[in-house]
Order: sequence, then structure tokens, then C-alpha cells
Amino acid sequence: MDVLVPFAATEPKTRLAGVLRPDERADFARVMLRDVCETVAEAGGSPTVLSTAELDCEWPVVVDDRLLTPAVNDRLEPPIAVVMADLALATPAALSTLFEADGEVVIAPGLGGGTNALVVRHPEFRTDYHGISVADHRRIADEIGATVTEIESTRLAVDIDEPEDLVELALHGDGRAATWLENAAVSIETEPTGGRATVTRD
Amino acid sequence: MDVLVPFAATEPKTRLAGVLRPDERADFARVMLRDVCETVAEAGGSPTVLSTAELDCEWPVVVDDRLLTPAVNDRLEPPIAVVMADLALATPAALSTLFEADGEVVIAPGLGGGTNALVVRHPEFRTDYHGISVADHRRIADEIGATVTEIESTRLAVDIDEPEDLVELALHGDGRAATWLENAAVSIETEPTGGRATVTRD
Repeated sequence: MDVLVPFAATEPKTRLAGVLRPDERADFARVMLRDVCETVAEAGGSPTVLSTAELDCEWPVVVDDRLLTPAVNDRLEPPIAVVMADLALATPAALSTLFEADGEVVIAPGLGGGTNALVVRHPEFRTDYHGISVADHRRIADEIGATVTEIESTRLAVDIDEPEDLVELALHGDGRAATWLENAAVSIETEPTGGRATVTRD
Repeated sequence: MDVLVPFAATEPKTRLAGVLRPDERADFARVMLRDVCETVAEAGGSPTVLSTAELDCEWPVVVDDRLLTPAVNDRLEPPIAVVMADLALATPAALSTLFEADGEVVIAPGLGGGTNALVVRHPEFRTDYHGISVADHRRIADEIGATVTEIESTRLAVDIDEPEDLVELALHGDGRAATWLENAAVSIETEPTGGRATVTRD
């Protein structure tokens, strides 16, 4: 299956500013992109990076500097998948489950209302990544009478966007991005009062 | 399978203090407990609530006011499962996958390094819920030579503990707890700058 991998090439991962410097965020984003493209290929997909700017990359790249939604919609020829470039926890098994799931629209929700991965088999479906996209995508599919399947997978639900997501990568990742994080001396700790672990930097 | 459902009966869900009043948190915690016990039973399990205090409940209850780890370990007669009482997104399918997975120790990790659900089939395994429990449970299993399987499931990974978890419940829940939240006029919103949705209260 053709798989679009949207990538924000300019100033990526600004929400990680409390942990990583700008040059590190750019490097880390590219390492995650590489992990994701490789995982897509291992799951039987053919990745094309949809980048907001020119990019040196071992996978095919198309450049479109518009917002995510129009850039994706102009290339939405079914059957096609859209997999975000920061799904550094994704495994071939998780993506295979997505690609092979029945449904004219298959959604892998992200934490916080996002749509981290999507398969589109209905010609009228269009994305809307602004706002609570998982709700919008359910509605859009409903409006065109497309059948919807939702995949529940932590590995697809956790995009690496906020500092707390680095905890998940450190604990559950095994790709280049997890190694990058370890080499960057980002580690995790818990509060004596309990609750979820947080990231810290040596 | 026998399933322990640990429940903090006194001042539960303090991390939701920014959104819910103390009486609401107590009520909400009990509603989630009911959802979880029912889902456990639908998945073929026999739930016993392991409560820190006396509790009026339609399911069997044992009271133990000690910390979670010793209270669970004293009742860890394999085969047995331990499922947290705030897994309000859990479905019978997700729990069946857990119960039926091979492995002497089966772990469903929670966000932030937690262990949200566990199946124990090895007589020497003991829990350690303090700190980054998923890492501790991997280590403990390794030390006794027990085979470990990890389940990746968003519905088991998201325990309803922090305000942002209410977003997940509002978007993906369909039990009593989701209805409770809706009736409490807790709704979700996104920032114009993007990122994950947050909860708000009318």
C-alpha cells in the first residue's frame, strides 16, 4: 500500500523545547522519520515522505509547504495510508494490523484526539487534521457513508510530541530514535508521590 | 480467571482535583470501578475488589488497608490477574487478549511506566508497583526466569488518573464512566496552536 508520511521539516517538535535544543529537535525528528519509513516498509507499505521543505532522505520525498490537511488531501488516491512521522513506537506488527484492517476508513487514534495513522479506501474521504481530528474523521466518514474501523494500539496512539512521550520511547522503543534518546542522556524518573514518570536530562 | 481489582477507597483520584470536587472524584472512582468489574466479568474473569476500606459494591470485596504492593502480593496465587480499577476504557476484547496471552507473566503497560494490568502464572512472581513498575516487573520476571509477554493496547494503557486522560474517556469511552463525565459537563477543547486536546468544564 502507498503510505504518505507527512513531515514538518522546519522547526519540528517545538513542544520538546523544554528537553531538547533546536538542533537536537531537528536531528531527533529526522531519526524518527527514518524509523517510521523503515517500519512502514517492513509492514509491506511503500512510504513517500510528504515534507514541508526539501529533505535529504533515503526514501521518496515530495515537497508541499501548505498546511497538513490540504497537502494530504491533494494526494489522497485510495487505497492509501497516512502515517505520522513521529510514531517512533510503531512496529511492523502494529502497522500491518492497520493496513490489513477492514473498513473504507481505518483510524488509529492518537492521544488527545489526534489521528496518528489512517487508511483510506473510499474515494470521497478527505482529512481534516485541525482540532479534534479523530472526531472530525468519524464525522466525515459518516457523512459520505464510509465504513469506519478504529484500531486500538498504544504503539500507534503515542506520537512523540510532548516531553512525557519521551518516557514511552525510553521504556518501550527499540529503534534508532530510542537509541538517540539514550545517547542524548535523556532519562526518566518518578516522583516519590507516585504518578507517571517524567523525563529528566543529565 | 480470578482477577484482583485494587481500589483506593479513601480520597481517590486526587490528581483530578483541578477538574472534579472531592465528592465527585469519589463518585467517579466508584463508577469506573463498576465499569471495570463488569468488563472483567464480560471477558470471562471473576473480579474481586481489593479495597483499602469497606465498600458497598455488587462484586466481592476484600479489605486491606496496606499499600498496593503488599496487599496484592499476599493474594498472588497463580493463575491470577490484577486489573486496575481506573481502566475505564477497557473493553471485553482488550481484557480477553490479556487473559488469553501466553506467558508466565503478561504485562499491559500503562502510560508513564505503570503496570495497568497483569496476569501471573509463575508462583515466584511478586509485584512492585512503586516507581517505574513496568521496568521492575520485567526485571523481577527475568530474575525468576519467567517468560514475559507484553500487551500493547491503548484501552489498557490509559488509566484515568490525570486530567488529560478524561479527554480519552470522552472521545473513546462508552461505559458508565463516560456517561458520568458527560453528565458532569466535562468537555474537551483544542488550542488554536494545535497539540493535544484538554479538558474544560462548563
